Amino acid sequence: MIDLTVVKIGGNVIDDTEKLNDFLDAFSNLNGKIVLVHGGGKLASDLAGKLGVQTKMVDGRRITDAENLKLVTMVYAGLINKNIVAALQARGVNAMGMCGADLDLIRAEKRSNTKVDFGFVGDVTAVNTLALCKQIECNSVLVIAPITHDGKGQLFNTNADTVATEVAVALSRFYKVKLIYSFEKLGVLMNAEDDSSVMPVLSDVKCSEMVKLGKINTGMLPKTQNAFYALSKGVEEVVIGNFVSMETNHSSGTQIINS
Amino acid sequence: MIDLTVVKIGGNVIDDTEKLNDFLDAFSNLNGKIVLVHGGGKLASDLAGKLGVQTKMVDGRRITDAENLKLVTMVYAGLINKNIVAALQARGVNAMGMCGADLDLIRAEKRSNTKVDFGFVGDVTAVNTLALCKQIECNSVLVIAPITHDGKGQLFNTNADTVATEVAVALSRFYKVKLIYSFEKLGVLMNAEDDSSVMPVLSDVKCSEMVKLGKINTGMLPKTQNAFYALSKGVEEVVIGNFVSMETNHSSGTQIINS
Repeated sequence: MIDLTVVKIGGNVIDDTEKLNDFLDAFSNLNGKIVLVHGGGKLASDLAGKLGVQTKMVDGRRITDAENLKLVTMVYAGLINKNIVAALQARGVNAMGMCGADLDLIRAEKRSNTKVDFGFVGDVTAVNTLALCKQIECNSVLVIAPITHDGKGQLFNTNADTVATEVAVALSRFYKVKLIYSFEKLGVLMNAEDDSSVMPVLSDVKCSEMVKLGKINTGMLPKTQNAFYALSKGVEEVVIGNFVSMETNHSSGTQIINS
Repeated sequence: MIDLTVVKIGGNVIDDTEKLNDFLDAFSNLNGKIVLVHGGGKLASDLAGKLGVQTKMVDGRRITDAENLKLVTMVYAGLINKNIVAALQARGVNAMGMCGADLDLIRAEKRSNTKVDFGFVGDVTAVNTLALCKQIECNSVLVIAPITHDGKGQLFNTNADTVATEVAVALSRFYKVKLIYSFEKLGVLMNAEDDSSVMPVLSDVKCSEMVKLGKINTGMLPKTQNAFYALSKGVEEVVIGNFVSMETNHSSGTQIINS
């Protein structure tokens, strides 16, 4: 099978022009098939603040009412997505920005059965693998904003780590997929206070231990859950780390492994 | 050559949910290859108002400073584009939203040599016909937002009529293209005060006469200029009219012809 890399970047990169440029420089040097999934960052919250639209967060996830859905659709699928695409084009990368509604790429349903009503937050129900593959085989570098849809005209806000995970899992039917969750740290830390305590590998058993000991906190927990899910569903290699450091300083991040 | 229809819709449709739904119903009944180009409407100006961002218009064209560029990128390529795509998916149409930066589809350069500095307003310099055709041949219905780029990372705001025109001209190398500029009236009016005075055809000679007599006003003038340009550059059929009426009431709009 052909290699394919799925890279997910979050707010820390998007909110900082210098970091974003460093990322895009490194990303544009990647060879082979690539998919980029980006999160949102502070831009949507900043805009909400300026417009007097309330933003509520529960467990690190945004409560998305109708006004907030408009904002994230504008900011994620419009402002951030198209600026990344234009910046990649400037670096010679044949980028194509998409969200989950485009080509019916990612379907979702409203999150239900939760104590909290998350509003227009969608949990992924299906990925259109064929449409993804067609675009990738045309040598497009897909840049995916984490906005999904229900097939009935409703858009949803979906967690970007989850979108990256589901896309990687879907593509692992046809490619040897490496999934990189890029964030501000060099990897999963043994000691959250010590940035140099990067774990070279993290197994499911070790992860459970660390969760019990409170060493994997609320921010990292869903990321590791996504990571182990991806691995169990056929993704060849899963790494949590810092993409720029991985590309330029040969840091290797934290490799997610089964015991 | 295979038939292909390029439809351009403007703000009057986008700003009105009922009209937009009527349009999307009629549009989703079109057969064959189709491209939709949408304008912006009042949403960007409304948002600018709420944010205290000044919006200046000169000759019906927005002066696009950096803040306004962010707004139109968000609203056109994000909010409007993705809601149209989701609504078309709900109607069984394999829609894909794009802007000019995606796949390097439409390049532009900053408008210069004008008395007024239009800011980040781009005039089209190139259309990536091959990328357009590839997508169309995959049976995607392209939904294009009028945001272009310069290939160096800069996005531009470009007139949606112009984008539709340039896309239609580019595609006419490979398809028999019908270009429909859809707007609120049933066609070009002989008498601007009388909505029933629709001209079935408008020739270049007749158009020049009407312009001299002031019967074609500032709003219609650039549209007719685009229309005659498209015709001269190989577009098979050019119509100015109301798409929904054309599809449902068999009104035929105004056919643009050479004398």
